[in-house]
Amino acid sequence: MRKTSVGILGATGTVGQRFIQLMEGHPWFKVTALGASERSAGKSYKEAVAGRWKLSADIPEYARDMQVEECKSGMDCDLVFGALDSSVAGPIETEFAEEGYFVVSNSKNHRFDKNVPLMSAEVNPEHLALLERQKTRGKIITNSNCTIMGITITFKALMDAFGLEQAAVFSMQAISGAGYPGIPSLDILGNVVPFISGEEEKTETEPLKILGKLTENGIENADIKITAHCNRVPVTDGHTVCVSVKLRDEATVEEITRTMSRFKGEPQKLNLPSAPKKAIVVRKEPDRPQARLDLMTGRGMTTTVGRIREDNLLDFKYATLSHNTMRGAAGAALLNAELIKAKGLI
Amino acid sequence: MRKTSVGILGATGTVGQRFIQLMEGHPWFKVTALGASERSAGKSYKEAVAGRWKLSADIPEYARDMQVEECKSGMDCDLVFGALDSSVAGPIETEFAEEGYFVVSNSKNHRFDKNVPLMSAEVNPEHLALLERQKTRGKIITNSNCTIMGITITFKALMDAFGLEQAAVFSMQAISGAGYPGIPSLDILGNVVPFISGEEEKTETEPLKILGKLTENGIENADIKITAHCNRVPVTDGHTVCVSVKLRDEATVEEITRTMSRFKGEPQKLNLPSAPKKAIVVRKEPDRPQARLDLMTGRGMTTTVGRIREDNLLDFKYATLSHNTMRGAAGAALLNAELIKAKGLI
Amino acid sequence: MRKTSVGILGATGTVGQRFIQLMEGHPWFKVTALGASERSAGKSYKEAVAGRWKLSADIPEYARDMQVEECKSGMDCDLVFGALDSSVAGPIETEFAEEGYFVVSNSKNHRFDKNVPLMSAEVNPEHLALLERQKTRGKIITNSNCTIMGITITFKALMDAFGLEQAAVFSMQAISGAGYPGIPSLDILGNVVPFISGEEEKTETEPLKILGKLTENGIENADIKITAHCNRVPVTDGHTVCVSVKLRDEATVEEITRTMSRFKGEPQKLNLPSAPKKAIVVRKEPDRPQARLDLMTGRGMTTTVGRIREDNLLDFKYATLSHNTMRGAAGAALLNAELIKAKGLI
Amino acid sequence: MRKTSVGILGATGTVGQRFIQLMEGHPWFKVTALGASERSAGKSYKEAVAGRWKLSADIPEYARDMQVEECKSGMDCDLVFGALDSSVAGPIETEFAEEGYFVVSNSKNHRFDKNVPLMSAEVNPEHLALLERQKTRGKIITNSNCTIMGITITFKALMDAFGLEQAAVFSMQAISGAGYPGIPSLDILGNVVPFISGEEEKTETEPLKILGKLTENGIENADIKITAHCNRVPVTDGHTVCVSVKLRDEATVEEITRTMSRFKGEPQKLNLPSAPKKAIVVRKEPDRPQARLDLMTGRGMTTTVGRIREDNLLDFKYATLSHNTMRGAAGAALLNAELIKAKGLI
Repeated sequence: MRKTSVGILGATGTVGQRFIQLMEGHPWFKVTALGASERSAGKSYKEAVAGRWKLSADIPEYARDMQVEECKSGMDCDLVFGALDSSVAGPIETEFAEEGYFVVSNSKNHRFDKNVPLMSAEVNPEHLALLERQKTRGKIITNSNCTIMGITITFKALMDAFGLEQAAVFSMQAISGAGYPGIPSLDILGNVVPFISGEEEKTETEPLKILGKLTENGIENADIKITAHCNRVPVTDGHTVCVSVKLRDEATVEEITRTMSRFKGEPQKLNLPSAPKKAIVVRKEPDRPQARLDLMTGRGMTTTVGRIREDNLLDFKYATLSHNTMRGAAGAALLNAELIKAKGLI
Repeated sequence: MRKTSVGILGATGTVGQRFIQLMEGHPWFKVTALGASERSAGKSYKEAVAGRWKLSADIPEYARDMQVEECKSGMDCDLVFGALDSSVAGPIETEFAEEGYFVVSNSKNHRFDKNVPLMSAEVNPEHLALLERQKTRGKIITNSNCTIMGITITFKALMDAFGLEQAAVFSMQAISGAGYPGIPSLDILGNVVPFISGEEEKTETEPLKILGKLTENGIENADIKITAHCNRVPVTDGHTVCVSVKLRDEATVEEITRTMSRFKGEPQKLNLPSAPKKAIVVRKEPDRPQARLDLMTGRGMTTTVGRIREDNLLDFKYATLSHNTMRGAAGAALLNAELIKAKGLI
Repeated sequence: MRKTSVGILGATGTVGQRFIQLMEGHPWFKVTALGASERSAGKSYKEAVAGRWKLSADIPEYARDMQVEECKSGMDCDLVFGALDSSVAGPIETEFAEEGYFVVSNSKNHRFDKNVPLMSAEVNPEHLALLERQKTRGKIITNSNCTIMGITITFKALMDAFGLEQAAVFSMQAISGAGYPGIPSLDILGNVVPFISGEEEKTETEPLKILGKLTENGIENADIKITAHCNRVPVTDGHTVCVSVKLRDEATVEEITRTMSRFKGEPQKLNLPSAPKKAIVVRKEPDRPQARLDLMTGRGMTTTVGRIREDNLLDFKYATLSHNTMRGAAGAALLNAELIKAKGLI
Repeated sequence: MRKTSVGILGATGTVGQRFIQLMEGHPWFKVTALGASERSAGKSYKEAVAGRWKLSADIPEYARDMQVEECKSGMDCDLVFGALDSSVAGPIETEFAEEGYFVVSNSKNHRFDKNVPLMSAEVNPEHLALLERQKTRGKIITNSNCTIMGITITFKALMDAFGLEQAAVFSMQAISGAGYPGIPSLDILGNVVPFISGEEEKTETEPLKILGKLTENGIENADIKITAHCNRVPVTDGHTVCVSVKLRDEATVEEITRTMSRFKGEPQKLNLPSAPKKAIVVRKEPDRPQARLDLMTGRGMTTTVGRIREDNLLDFKYATLSHNTMRGAAGAALLNAELIKAKGLI
């Protein structure tokens, strides 16, 4: 298989850096173009990102001396990963799609466009059928918000097996979810901030589209009521989310445990390069999942679930952890791109 | 008014230290006896607590050279504050009550004894009528778990105004709630632990008794369904709790805000020395309450509420913060003791 | 005594907020004017500071509705506290001095002006004699950098008693020292940053002027060699500094302990309103001082010292803690202002 | 080469867990025995370590079901790694050496035994000659304290090139250095503790033996004066150490940078399996090294150095970071074992 040439839009930001890292030695993709703001254009990547590279391993060799350019079509690649700030991502991504690029975006701007799949590779690969309805030469697919990505996989497992009617979602989100510089240390060190702008709205709506049904008239939202409380906590990486769910059918803790543990999506079936062996790992210890211990399960692509138990109010409750910049952002987009490639869509 | 002489059982522990601090210069109470384990007995308080005094102000002068004794009746005082570990508190408190002491306990052991009030001075002062039914010479009253104390006041305000039917409670609890040495730093630094032993059970049951109705046959639990997710977060003091509630009657965000803001309990009406001017403060900023900013509101005795808004699933949701070792432990017990004294029960 | 009317330049910043707080109920000063950037001018203080008030108690009532104006002379007051960013403080402070205001500044810009005292009220009150040599109608005095303020008091005590020749200074500085938004949480949570721009230079030079001798030709620097390593650590407030010193004369650990414990400066002798009873408190416990326990000693104005012991390389070593926005910034400036007023210079 | 069979003494502790992890797939060693306390004996490793496994990847498959035994000779292996608490390590290690095992210990007990090498594989491989002088059938080698391991490599590079006369060492040490449960979270969250029991003594003496000269009469200590200030900071892994040094010969910042960058020890020359490609990496950025970014350089075996600059008091100063449980403990011991094997000593 010939490698697909890819560009990264917003290559110097937090999510862009993850893309740079994940592309190192990727068997199917090869980075041939890096896009960033005007300020960075013309610099080598290592200059452009100086003082802002925030991953715990160094900039991969391949990227250090690549020249950064502005995010304008004309970039030398077939597919672009979108890691731009939402204040600018919308029109840029549209332009790229019109010019024939395949846009795989982590930005929120096009998530609710009628013919744009809001994708989680394990959850709704059938939504890729929407691509045919996009009128541009290129195509756009998006992934959802970092908090959603991890828990929606558990929703999918539950929905398929028992029907899912309601969910109360309480998140404790890592600071890396806010990008860089993100949240000032004075606001979060030894503190909890019980508010993240726009986050609860996304958490309450995006899963409905992801879990929705493909119809002639676009995606019909899943009929699930979700309420969300989103909090920022002093954790570097890894969103912990507590969930209470109401199911349509009877179930037991054991059945739910088994259902989640056995859940397999297309990435697992197709053995995609970035797919974790298990999309969901259920831990039996009483005090898991924990960011410090479970963050890198499945190389950061697994959702770890624990404490599945009955709920006094709805039916069941459990805790989840997923890596917000891997499973919740760059890794999710990459998995989507791998799925597209495996299906011959690019 | 003559000062009541008080003893502190478990004076060297985390909650005991708070009692020591709160008694400094108290207008109604005077510490005359300090009880701790055999290991500490015979030492001066400052020796007994050496290396374990964990409050940010020094040991008050009055206590430094007091001699610590074992927690046995014979202590020279009329009232004892109970701050013992639950592994030993039960029989000791019973013994003190039998010997004629008034026991005001923060321990969980007697909370569900039929004739023992589980008290929150703002919420259920009428439960003090149970004291007459205790057959011992002395009496026991208890306060509830640290997480409950803060939110139950908001439940009381809602219940009185609109009826309260259901609550989903999601806590992010400070490390001081686990005592000392408590949770190892390796487990909590930069991490969230989605489990606290026994905490969810208490959170789901204790409010029912506190909010219950006094009947001839003891306390009839309030008819509220509560589900709780309890988490430990890297915050020193201050439990942040997110709550979704279902009310019996119609309400609006404005009405709830007004109801909570105006809530007054007996401590406010009687102007008790440790009563905060306002039991509940409602903040209007989008990102409050926060432990770092709101912890000491009302000298640590106020529950701060924020983000009152509608809920997709139940009716309304909001966030609360209260100081877990003040409002949630020693301060709550002290307020109970002040109420007893104001009512002439001691 | 009539209260002096004061203005605060940079009233909305981190240090400005401390000034606002410290002025509440001050017996000698009364805030009559608040200066900030053009962006804030015309707003009420509470509007101007909305979302940026970062102290753990609310905005004092007196300041909430005061109108903020630009930092231009014409402000209705006799003395201004300078809490401006150093990028703009220089010419503004000069203008105020020329227009006749007494400028008591926490900014670094004029610290090394020949006739401007770099003051620590306990250390070099005699430098106030420089004021006569300033040619402007008003006058400027400055205090030093936050790290220096605490340790220079210990240097003064040692210098007077034993002569001080060398000092190696290792700081672990709190995040509040960087202002707001200051250091991004991603850079400091669970991390140490072994660099603070410009800090080592200040630490190595400012004490030399503070401890210097008043001569006809300005201040003659003290003859002390200082080396500094400055680090940022994930602590909210309180700079911990480890120090090794070489003395001119023989000394013992006991003598140094006694010398520091007994140290008294003019603020103590004059009993200034903000003076701590003891400028230095020496703790005997093996593991002190600690930010969590000792920060508020002397209402944040005391330098706490511990672990005085012999040094293999120089002569003695010890650890210190001082509150960086109190003793190290706003509190220090206030104490300077109180000294000026006590001496009738305003 | 046939794999050497190894046992791990203290396999359930913090350092023991690292050994378990490092042995996974090791090309030269194979774990055949696990020793722990009586309490763990007879259990499978996964049972024995339940609730105490604190590494961020799961227990390696090979170890999960191995049976733990008491630390008594008779263990089925040729070499034992010593990860026991110093309260029990001394006589147990002696017994193993007498029974013919090769003991590679991370414990402090035998570090200063006359004929026991205190080893850092990059620094003093010639000290292995001491082994011949040990009279037991088996042999003991030790590595030094976690703080020392990283900086001693920089001392070695400086000593060889310029002579090293004095060093002032200031450490900011991670909590994992205290083992588990180690330091309570209430003591360290948002705090600095300027004291670690016994640490400064080790820091001031162990490098002298490591850097010492092999003589007929044992190791003659290096003639270097060291002073140490050791602090605990809220960092999970990675000790940051600031150092000022006085050299015998003239040097420049560039020469020191070059000397450190080029430093190679025997592990690099012999290409040992756990040897980092570079023992020292010198970063040029102004604000490095940092635990968050540099911890895993050289798979946790490299000492990262930054900020090499002139010193006002001594000659030069710099900052270092090394991974305290890798380079500073289990990794160091493993490198020592690999060196022994490469030299045919086992």
